[in-house]
Amino acid sequence: MEKKTRTEIAALGQFGLIERLTRDFPLADASSLRGAGDDAAVIAPPAGETVLCTTDALYEGVDFDLTYFPLKHLGYKVVTAAVSDILAMNATPSQLLLSLGVSSKLPVEALDDLYEGVRLACREARVDLVGGDTRASMTGLVISATALGHAPRERIVGRGGAQANDLVCITGNLGAAYMGLRLLEREKRVLAGVANPEPQFGGYEYLLERYLKPRPRTDIVEALRTEGILPTAMIDLTDGLASDLLQVCRASQCGVRIYLDRLPIARQTSALAEEMHADPVVAALHGGEDYELLFTVPLVMQEQIMKSGLVDVIGHITPASTGCFLVTPDGGEIRLKAQGFPEGETAIKN
Amino acid sequence: MEKKTRTEIAALGQFGLIERLTRDFPLADASSLRGAGDDAAVIAPPAGETVLCTTDALYEGVDFDLTYFPLKHLGYKVVTAAVSDILAMNATPSQLLLSLGVSSKLPVEALDDLYEGVRLACREARVDLVGGDTRASMTGLVISATALGHAPRERIVGRGGAQANDLVCITGNLGAAYMGLRLLEREKRVLAGVANPEPQFGGYEYLLERYLKPRPRTDIVEALRTEGILPTAMIDLTDGLASDLLQVCRASQCGVRIYLDRLPIARQTSALAEEMHADPVVAALHGGEDYELLFTVPLVMQEQIMKSGLVDVIGHITPASTGCFLVTPDGGEIRLKAQGFPEGETAIKN
Repeated sequence: MEKKTRTEIAALGQFGLIERLTRDFPLADASSLRGAGDDAAVIAPPAGETVLCTTDALYEGVDFDLTYFPLKHLGYKVVTAAVSDILAMNATPSQLLLSLGVSSKLPVEALDDLYEGVRLACREARVDLVGGDTRASMTGLVISATALGHAPRERIVGRGGAQANDLVCITGNLGAAYMGLRLLEREKRVLAGVANPEPQFGGYEYLLERYLKPRPRTDIVEALRTEGILPTAMIDLTDGLASDLLQVCRASQCGVRIYLDRLPIARQTSALAEEMHADPVVAALHGGEDYELLFTVPLVMQEQIMKSGLVDVIGHITPASTGCFLVTPDGGEIRLKAQGFPEGETAIKN
Repeated sequence: MEKKTRTEIAALGQFGLIERLTRDFPLADASSLRGAGDDAAVIAPPAGETVLCTTDALYEGVDFDLTYFPLKHLGYKVVTAAVSDILAMNATPSQLLLSLGVSSKLPVEALDDLYEGVRLACREARVDLVGGDTRASMTGLVISATALGHAPRERIVGRGGAQANDLVCITGNLGAAYMGLRLLEREKRVLAGVANPEPQFGGYEYLLERYLKPRPRTDIVEALRTEGILPTAMIDLTDGLASDLLQVCRASQCGVRIYLDRLPIARQTSALAEEMHADPVVAALHGGEDYELLFTVPLVMQEQIMKSGLVDVIGHITPASTGCFLVTPDGGEIRLKAQGFPEGETAIKN
């Protein structure tokens, strides 16, 4: 974390700073007509396609703690958060605008690190940085990202299309990001006041990566297209499985049954939960920040979706009157509740 | 400022709050296919047109002081700030996404006020609120707005098209918003600690309105279309005439001469500046937040632009080698410098 040089933001001046930060962001997508450097970015979506737009903000002290969140990873993660919302509509992400509120305590080198993460994430997700602004903030660091994407209108998948008997599918595994956060917070507590802290993460690197550097599931949206699968409803898992699934049920006016023994939980997630005397299922249901995709497909696609190897089928949609429940291995039913992060953070996406 | 009732944000819950805030935001624009309530908004621009996107953030303590900035006006102003960037590209604003970081000290009624201003500004500017999110912030209030618009590609006007001999035109008048801010700050200082403060704004209401409730110049962009005038370069005046004009010169690789005695300054601006022993020209050059438009047109349009009554012609573009200067009535030349707000705020728009 030590830096050889420290350049004050004021030393570079307005044009100098922005040129330094936004260099090496070539416009690669054919739909990016004009990027940073004017009052607005200009996008030409493929003929006949619609444009999607979403915005996400991360606040220091709420969404991240700079004592253990490297700025490079933070830059990466904010891109994932924005891009993931475009993917969750079954669309192709293509552009990003970034708005930074920066306290003067951060040197230019810190912003370099942040932008390095942004650059890496943009390259991997194949989106162009086309604008934004960098401002002084009296408070903590605020990063706000706007992502744009495109899709033919008939391929767009919202939250509201799930129907009774549809299968509930999820990608990847659940709760790992949350356990990664728990691990970072534990080491911060344990090492508070220690002169040369050496946090112990041995064996849990996967959890840290899931929390610090989550990857958007671009691969899944592309695979669905290749497989010819059009989900009936889709959402990205950011607030926790329970909360996000309830949003789908609410928008689709339906109920759901998911099965506890079908929830995909990584080995490291279970191991750390056990070590901390916590329940890995709680992490899976309420942990959030997984950035995996949850979607529903008609029952007739069962064989195709199973064979694709893309997802786990964790349950099925039911009529609204039957409610939303988690079914335990002994057949018991536990009503699903939206909790968000167990710490009680309130994230309201509209 | 007193409120009869105070509802805690936590009391409404996630869905309750968002439903309360986003009610009465019908989708009016034909290009708004899907608004709030999903992972992303969906826009269908008119066939063959490009999409424009810009993002702007306002930070408590930097961009506004809640002790004298009514939340309703703040909501109005953030819409203006975003929409103005779309207009500055000679495009039609059509959608808005709003991201709020809110400290829990604010009651729901305060957010109602904020959204009332957003609603009014959206209606006047004919843009649809199509999404965003509301989050807890550990720090002050942060409002980030993303505006979308559309235009035929050939009508888009950037900063980089000004040519030698083009006329420099500006709408409205300059420095009024800045003097409005100075007035509010003076009354805040004078009344600090007074039990029932009664600030004295008599005769300067126009300045307050220009600072607290600036209007985007949608009318100008529409009038340019009606008149068949396509500017060569355009920018909106947010950082002050000098700074914004220098951005045009830099992007267009040209110089400029503007004439001090042609700068439009409102009577109230001059009067308050005189009362405060300040120079109204400094307010006009460096005050910022005017949200007026500056554009350049070819010299051959001189008669047409004069007759239109839309603007003041304050100078002309020159070759880059001649530099950028303000010409005083006695023929003296003062080099233009980017200062932003005299307080030294650094706003970096990229």
